[in-house]
Amino acid sequence: MSTAGKVIKCKAAVLWEVKKPFSIEDVEVAPPKAYEVRIKMVAVGICRTDDHVVSGNLVSPLPAILGHEAAGIVESVGEGVTTVKPGDKVIPLFTPQCGKCRVCKSPEGNYCVKNDLSNPRGTLQDGTRRFTCRGKPIHHFVGTSTFSQYTVVDENAVAKIDAASPLEKVCLIGCGFSTGYGSAVNVAKVGMTMDKKTAYMQTVRNQKCQIFTLFQMASLLCCHEACGTSVIVGVPPDSQNLSINPMLLLTGRTWKGAVYGGFKSREGIPKLVADFMAKKFSLDALITHVLPFEKINEGFDLLRSGKSIRTVLTF
Amino acid sequence: MSTAGKVIKCKAAVLWEVKKPFSIEDVEVAPPKAYEVRIKMVAVGICRTDDHVVSGNLVSPLPAILGHEAAGIVESVGEGVTTVKPGDKVIPLFTPQCGKCRVCKSPEGNYCVKNDLSNPRGTLQDGTRRFTCRGKPIHHFVGTSTFSQYTVVDENAVAKIDAASPLEKVCLIGCGFSTGYGSAVNVAKVGMTMDKKTAYMQTVRNQKCQIFTLFQMASLLCCHEACGTSVIVGVPPDSQNLSINPMLLLTGRTWKGAVYGGFKSREGIPKLVADFMAKKFSLDALITHVLPFEKINEGFDLLRSGKSIRTVLTF
Repeated sequence: MSTAGKVIKCKAAVLWEVKKPFSIEDVEVAPPKAYEVRIKMVAVGICRTDDHVVSGNLVSPLPAILGHEAAGIVESVGEGVTTVKPGDKVIPLFTPQCGKCRVCKSPEGNYCVKNDLSNPRGTLQDGTRRFTCRGKPIHHFVGTSTFSQYTVVDENAVAKIDAASPLEKVCLIGCGFSTGYGSAVNVAKVGMTMDKKTAYMQTVRNQKCQIFTLFQMASLLCCHEACGTSVIVGVPPDSQNLSINPMLLLTGRTWKGAVYGGFKSREGIPKLVADFMAKKFSLDALITHVLPFEKINEGFDLLRSGKSIRTVLTF
Repeated sequence: MSTAGKVIKCKAAVLWEVKKPFSIEDVEVAPPKAYEVRIKMVAVGICRTDDHVVSGNLVSPLPAILGHEAAGIVESVGEGVTTVKPGDKVIPLFTPQCGKCRVCKSPEGNYCVKNDLSNPRGTLQDGTRRFTCRGKPIHHFVGTSTFSQYTVVDENAVAKIDAASPLEKVCLIGCGFSTGYGSAVNVAKVGMTMDKKTAYMQTVRNQKCQIFTLFQMASLLCCHEACGTSVIVGVPPDSQNLSINPMLLLTGRTWKGAVYGGFKSREGIPKLVADFMAKKFSLDALITHVLPFEKINEGFDLLRSGKSIRTVLTF
């Protein structure tokens, strides 16, 4: 029997307050409104950004259903949705690509104005919520809320991917892989800078080190004073400012950052999945643990203890 | 009678200690050694960077002869010098272009490793000094020391310019004009970014404001969160770090800097002088005061009181 147009009752991990474990709860997921998509989740990665919300370092309205690195299958679509249909394999996008704002229309930048990152409201783009638990509305998180058997996202925040994709792997393309790879290739433009033959082979190891860690000051200091580029990746704890001597930049360094590795999300993510399917890269080395969704707190403990790179939760 | 090969006795403004006025002194200027050039100064601008040394905010060995934005005429050259000859009009370069280091050989960056800015020794590139006053050796400043009737510079730190150049004007191309103009054109690449037709005409006024002031945090905040570039110009007081929230960069901003507006100095400065001679830009609006060299302290007072943009001292 079709669930389209009906409220779905399912399990979700709710964060009621900071510094507490996730609570697996029975939640109601409303049907998608116009230009929205309801997704049945298949696999979701545990990312440090989610943990920043748990610790209170990244402020987003609570109670909420977190999670933003995932892959699933479209269950139903709201009125007017044309780019995905029930049964499509998809990746939710924590930064949308509305295609209409100045940033989306420009060749530079990918930080679509429809994002819910800068000033999080904890809602979908129309300002309302689709989750209820124990009679209370529950907040969304960065427009994705993938720690739930079902979620609702805006159409401009979901990317249709290859129907043959193994969702328990390509879920990492929803955040971790894309952020790291894109920061190197799109933002730092590794391999496109000076001394192509020498510096690239000398410095790639260093640049990887710079890009894939959050040791931002060390990264800035390490890069070449006259022409080096240091890229900030990952959401920083918002209470911690960095103190820098402007002379570090004056000699010629560039300091920049990007979400999603600079990829315009709806265009870029399906291409990365296609590259994965063409075996241009592997994700196996990043996935150190696979756990059932109900063991989400165990997955976060693995992250905090440094024992995991990525834990993938399966539904 | 030629002065070549002989010590020249002349007047120079010596800074004996921080937070004191310049003292016009009789100094001895040794002849240029191999690959060095002795210059008779004609005009020199007063720049905030010189004043940062006076205030103690920029540390450089004292006592010293400061000054770095100037134009003059070659008096004599040391052994092996081939690119300038006595009588040539020249601009001393506070950042050399040795042509041999990794930065000079690269298309990116201009911060030649032979600079005396990062770790100032107060000497020429061979580690020794050419000035003596009251029997004591006097330090150089950023390899130029143009607050003197005669100075000695390394050959890779001097640019031959058009013989018809009005030195009392083009001296500004030695620092202030090049830094501001180059920061916009070379570093921020004003006019080469997104929304060419609209953003450029909307934002140029803002970008000028950003680039030509030292309100560095304000500049970073003002530029577009998804694709804006903010350029640091001018030497910052080295005791003042800036505190920034990395989230400002994560959304897509770029923060960078450059000395000399990103120009490779020996190549770039003569071209700018040629552009000036071709009337592509004017320097008149920047020169608010002209004073005889002996009134250097009055010139600095005009700078500190905000009454001048540039005071040019003439010899």
